[in-house]
Amino acid sequence: MSEFRTRHAREHIDNEMVIIEVNLDDCSGETLSYTMDRLFAAGANDVYYTSIYMKKNRPAYKLSVLSDKKKQPLLEEIIFRETSSFGLRYYPVSCHRLGREFYQAETAYGEVSVKIGIYQGEPIKFSPEFEDCRKAAEKHNVSLQNVYDEAKSMATMHYKS
Amino acid sequence: MSEFRTRHAREHIDNEMVIIEVNLDDCSGETLSYTMDRLFAAGANDVYYTSIYMKKNRPAYKLSVLSDKKKQPLLEEIIFRETSSFGLRYYPVSCHRLGREFYQAETAYGEVSVKIGIYQGEPIKFSPEFEDCRKAAEKHNVSLQNVYDEAKSMATMHYKS
Amino acid sequence: MSEFRTRHAREHIDNEMVIIEVNLDDCSGETLSYTMDRLFAAGANDVYYTSIYMKKNRPAYKLSVLSDKKKQPLLEEIIFRETSSFGLRYYPVSCHRLGREFYQAETAYGEVSVKIGIYQGEPIKFSPEFEDCRKAAEKHNVSLQNVYDEAKSMATMHYKS
Amino acid sequence: MSEFRTRHAREHIDNEMVIIEVNLDDCSGETLSYTMDRLFAAGANDVYYTSIYMKKNRPAYKLSVLSDKKKQPLLEEIIFRETSSFGLRYYPVSCHRLGREFYQAETAYGEVSVKIGIYQGEPIKFSPEFEDCRKAAEKHNVSLQNVYDEAKSMATMHYKS
Amino acid sequence: MSEFRTRHAREHIDNEMVIIEVNLDDCSGETLSYTMDRLFAAGANDVYYTSIYMKKNRPAYKLSVLSDKKKQPLLEEIIFRETSSFGLRYYPVSCHRLGREFYQAETAYGEVSVKIGIYQGEPIKFSPEFEDCRKAAEKHNVSLQNVYDEAKSMATMHYKS
Amino acid sequence: MSEFRTRHAREHIDNEMVIIEVNLDDCSGETLSYTMDRLFAAGANDVYYTSIYMKKNRPAYKLSVLSDKKKQPLLEEIIFRETSSFGLRYYPVSCHRLGREFYQAETAYGEVSVKIGIYQGEPIKFSPEFEDCRKAAEKHNVSLQNVYDEAKSMATMHYKS
Repeated sequence: MSEFRTRHAREHIDNEMVIIEVNLDDCSGETLSYTMDRLFAAGANDVYYTSIYMKKNRPAYKLSVLSDKKKQPLLEEIIFRETSSFGLRYYPVSCHRLGREFYQAETAYGEVSVKIGIYQGEPIKFSPEFEDCRKAAEKHNVSLQNVYDEAKSMATMHYKS
Repeated sequence: MSEFRTRHAREHIDNEMVIIEVNLDDCSGETLSYTMDRLFAAGANDVYYTSIYMKKNRPAYKLSVLSDKKKQPLLEEIIFRETSSFGLRYYPVSCHRLGREFYQAETAYGEVSVKIGIYQGEPIKFSPEFEDCRKAAEKHNVSLQNVYDEAKSMATMHYKS
Repeated sequence: MSEFRTRHAREHIDNEMVIIEVNLDDCSGETLSYTMDRLFAAGANDVYYTSIYMKKNRPAYKLSVLSDKKKQPLLEEIIFRETSSFGLRYYPVSCHRLGREFYQAETAYGEVSVKIGIYQGEPIKFSPEFEDCRKAAEKHNVSLQNVYDEAKSMATMHYKS
Repeated sequence: MSEFRTRHAREHIDNEMVIIEVNLDDCSGETLSYTMDRLFAAGANDVYYTSIYMKKNRPAYKLSVLSDKKKQPLLEEIIFRETSSFGLRYYPVSCHRLGREFYQAETAYGEVSVKIGIYQGEPIKFSPEFEDCRKAAEKHNVSLQNVYDEAKSMATMHYKS
Repeated sequence: MSEFRTRHAREHIDNEMVIIEVNLDDCSGETLSYTMDRLFAAGANDVYYTSIYMKKNRPAYKLSVLSDKKKQPLLEEIIFRETSSFGLRYYPVSCHRLGREFYQAETAYGEVSVKIGIYQGEPIKFSPEFEDCRKAAEKHNVSLQNVYDEAKSMATMHYKS
Repeated sequence: MSEFRTRHAREHIDNEMVIIEVNLDDCSGETLSYTMDRLFAAGANDVYYTSIYMKKNRPAYKLSVLSDKKKQPLLEEIIFRETSSFGLRYYPVSCHRLGREFYQAETAYGEVSVKIGIYQGEPIKFSPEFEDCRKAAEKHNVSLQNVYDEAKSMATMHYKS
């Protein structure tokens, strides 16, 4: 089946994950953005910020990092070195991940890779890759939504029929 | 004591709860709202969204579901089928819940049910039911706050004296 | 009527107001809090922050200042000197303000001042002063809500009867 | 052309609109929700809340109402009566609205109305009505996204070919 | 003075600016990010998103675009083509911008450009360019904050002495 | 070394911590602020609020409290007595805290205490105490940033050389 990429993952549960969190009230937005890049580059599974209200009337951000436990020491070092944090907290989490396949949709705007999510053997999710859509939209001067909708529609028809 | 509803719960701690979370950067607000309805209908104890900042400059929402562990598989299926998620995470939590009673306040705008919270045997919380207040306010063309304040005041006086 | 404070304001519309706004992506929460204090001290009518998503993945805050046009130059100087801003924007707004009176409620926890809002001659709003409630709650070791509810109830009864 | 609804609007600019805003730091979420319902029922074009950081460490919400200037007095009265506000502000805005048509898509899950947006004579937007999609999804026990995608795809093909 | 870049701007007020805003409840985070890029590329002065609460329980985002009035038609077309919007609103604003100069700081990690803000003839703001700091930090394997602090310190000393 | 305060803490991991959380949809901003003060006074390590979207279109806040497990019962009582909560949840977390020292910087605006963060024996963080900076800035009529930058620069030079 030449239309599937070699990358493939079965649906599974991973119990060796951890969430690391820290509240930051004296970091600039530039530092927050840079720290996110560093954490992803070092292997974090996910990194995100949440706006929070801290004491003494201080708008602040909570940094959350989802990581494999093995990478925790490295990611903690980045947090301590790049942010204003004097302490962080963490707790174990489990992750349930769908099986994944890729389908190459031959749209009117060129080939677009679509990620397929497999839940208990059934393909239920059809997600065109953003970068492919962006490039096709810019090349053909159409809206991103046009490309995205066509690629998704083709992948859905392929799997549902 | 005819003024109390039959529904009653003692103060207790429940250790069999779980929080399920997933970050969503390609769901519309309509889908988020619909998913919340489906999760409540399937028995979730609580469902809420938090606005977060994800990679690649993407505004996104974190979905959080508080659930009994027994309902976790059903709620996970709804999340996978209705949202754009390819993976979710979860961790166990304990819940401490107050005892609950209901008092029927005979306000000038009609009967309003007031939920009473019991902490270590002491009634400390008096919360008029929103739907009762809303209906009374609309029927009598007064502000919601009017009805709410009177119902709360009557319940407080009943229990405190 | 000794129970009303001397401070009194009629309901009115003020067309000489302005909103000043600036997006800040490299200020710490401490600086934001300090700047708010400075702006209020210099006569701003209101100051608030909103969490926003700026370019290059930067979590940021929008500072909004509501001010009389006469105070605009002074407040702009504070913004330029205390924050990281290289530019700000502003636009004129009109304000519709209720008439205001004060009622002194003699609660079981001491005297609490209640601000009354007058809409077209009718008292419609009864707002106990937070600081009075806080002091009474701490002195008598009861919850803030207890004091607040009793003061509001007394003011409402005084005006409605 | 029986497939278009009678409701139709040409693309236009409306200069008689106003935004009314008020910062609320002592309203409950229940009151905010109820006030939104009242404002829509009274004819507001749009109503939304934004989480803001006010003085004295108070999490708060800004209420924003988009309205025709003729409805402003009625909407202001609702705000003053239902919320804790002692004052509000407003400023004029212009609205640019696309032309609108409706297409009835005959999907595998039943008829779904699709709103079409017309920009300078060109149909550029295809938005299936949420309520139609929700009912079809629940009746046929499929995900909302399934129904939405098919209806949008049919409308797009109808107009683009 | 070879250490100043040729780009230079005097402090001024610009009354020909406009804010364009639209509430989006059915756009994905990917679309929002792509739209921001398109708007900046087309000449918007600033683009940002704010998380808001819309009707029917829908988490949503408000898009705000600050623009010269001349560019308004082009930016409106991008918004209509790329987002789910059927209508947008706008209002005029004035911008007060500081004078700007650039200083090249010769730090231990290489040259870093520092933007200087001039308020009524006085240099009051010293803001190292993020990209210069990022490159220097990565090249010398030090924290971003190290480079930023040194560059700012050098610029401050140069102007204050 | 007279320039260090007596307070000192070694880098360590604390496994006896807990996060307590509760979603609040009928508390005013005043109550939220007062509750935060009470929780800090009773020994909470950290307290913060996050804006969330709850069911029935209700803007709400999540209260999060980081605490030593020994203080949990006391903090839960404050939450139950001061807020509208009928139930709360909690889960264990571990905290990783840097070593801490204090350096007294003799700035041109007076003495400012700087908190030093020690990571695996290396001083990596230099954080001037906000209150010292605020007082110095107000006394000498300079911007807060001026004082902060100078104190940080002096502490950094002391430790790095």
